Amino acid sequence: MNSRRILAVGSVALDSVKTPFGKVTDALGGSATFFSASARFFSPVSIVAVVGCDFPPNYLNLIKKLGVDTHDLRTVPGKTFRWKGFYGYNLNDAHTLKTELNVFQDFRPVVSEENRECAYVFLANIDPDLQQSVLAQVRRPRLTACDTMNYWIQNKKKSLRALLKKVDLFLCNDNEARQLARERNLIQCARWILSRGPRLLVIKKGEHGVACFSKNFLFIAPAYPLENVSDPTGAGDSFAGGFIGYLARSGRFNESVVRKAVIYGSVLASYNVERFSLNRLIRLKRSEIERRYRRFGRLTKF
Amino acid sequence: MNSRRILAVGSVALDSVKTPFGKVTDALGGSATFFSASARFFSPVSIVAVVGCDFPPNYLNLIKKLGVDTHDLRTVPGKTFRWKGFYGYNLNDAHTLKTELNVFQDFRPVVSEENRECAYVFLANIDPDLQQSVLAQVRRPRLTACDTMNYWIQNKKKSLRALLKKVDLFLCNDNEARQLARERNLIQCARWILSRGPRLLVIKKGEHGVACFSKNFLFIAPAYPLENVSDPTGAGDSFAGGFIGYLARSGRFNESVVRKAVIYGSVLASYNVERFSLNRLIRLKRSEIERRYRRFGRLTKF
Repeated sequence: MNSRRILAVGSVALDSVKTPFGKVTDALGGSATFFSASARFFSPVSIVAVVGCDFPPNYLNLIKKLGVDTHDLRTVPGKTFRWKGFYGYNLNDAHTLKTELNVFQDFRPVVSEENRECAYVFLANIDPDLQQSVLAQVRRPRLTACDTMNYWIQNKKKSLRALLKKVDLFLCNDNEARQLARERNLIQCARWILSRGPRLLVIKKGEHGVACFSKNFLFIAPAYPLENVSDPTGAGDSFAGGFIGYLARSGRFNESVVRKAVIYGSVLASYNVERFSLNRLIRLKRSEIERRYRRFGRLTKF
Repeated sequence: MNSRRILAVGSVALDSVKTPFGKVTDALGGSATFFSASARFFSPVSIVAVVGCDFPPNYLNLIKKLGVDTHDLRTVPGKTFRWKGFYGYNLNDAHTLKTELNVFQDFRPVVSEENRECAYVFLANIDPDLQQSVLAQVRRPRLTACDTMNYWIQNKKKSLRALLKKVDLFLCNDNEARQLARERNLIQCARWILSRGPRLLVIKKGEHGVACFSKNFLFIAPAYPLENVSDPTGAGDSFAGGFIGYLARSGRFNESVVRKAVIYGSVLASYNVERFSLNRLIRLKRSEIERRYRRFGRLTKF
């Protein structure tokens, strides 16, 4: 029954973001949110997360309306996780002004009986110990993936390395790959990371696209060229949503499917950054995804 | 007779370069050198340049041995152009320590009768007034291309803009495109530059590859992923050599040919950076070029 369902653990957050092209205050954000708003185009998604009593009911309704299962999204006393940051003209670099963990501080994710049967697991960027605790609750996952960030590489290296052994797929950005492997060259980083467990490594390079490494092949995709980028927040998680969503839909995990999945991930990320918060993803149509997918083909063909 | 011959004006230089992987002192370099050592695999090349009396005879022999026509390479009293620089672990950024123009200071390029019949012209990065004077001496060029650098954008903007009107093809790196167009977004830069004359714009992004813009299409190529890069010096000029060399060999200038030419350019640049100075290009074989070209296809195919 849950043979295509994805279980995603991560944050549901209130983001205050400023870029050269505008700003939002307490807008809907969080890794689980961006991920599921993208992955839902391909496969059913359940999220595991926590929000505070201050979480606006219309945001909760919005997530449900997208078709995302919120059975394991808990509302608890306290304030919702908040992120405040800004981007300069170099939209590849996020500058954090404030991170308020709030209800995430004491989050102990519990996965419901039904969601323990999910076939696909995405562990968005949170404490690797929490990622591990969610992973342990899923019974027979077909494919497991995790993301991380510089903070955990620095402060929870041991937990992260233990987790790496247990996931099929690891996603991170180029600087995180370098920090984790202590290498400058990305091919050398990839070799290091792939020798620690994952079968596939996806290195996200923002406006410079994605490099996808396995022991048998290397696939490179540019970012879709955009004339107007409003807000890069959530680009990595919407990439992961399109990527893992497509893998779950196809039900296979071979080289050909992985290449297509990277492009679907890039398509979703490219739409996401066109507007602030979820404003583009919630209006996105399947036909628009397919159109941009086809354009991607013409971008790199020779 | 010269229907495929490329005339390239630029520098022939002595480079002293240090990178995290080694160093060289007074090694053979210069934009015309890297360009012609790459373009010669595809089409005959003549260079227009100047060196001083101190230019080592074995370097001159080496250039001739590559099959490059040196009829318009003058040796004059004085010292050869010298560049001294270094690269840190971020090999995308060159740091200049010293530039000695020497004999280039008073260089007034004169193109011989025979070379005035060349069908293809590459104006490597030198003073736009010199580029213009060479261009004016060529009788009926089929295709003209020019490169530039931040110094000329800042100090010879008017000359550069006049030159832009006269060339078919403009090459620069991403920061130069932004500086010239006064825009951050590369698509907007491309629109600005293409409206000033050239039919084709190639933006070089170092380890992030190349974006090629025309009014009708956009082509993106990654850089060939390399585990060992010794010295990025000459990457842009060896790219231009492979690119324009292939265009000259094919004799056509349509979208399909341009896409293939970009890949050949990227192949030549990728080999060049594997060793210091010309050390890789002079040993390079045609079969190696074709092998890497085919691998490029597998890199981006989905």
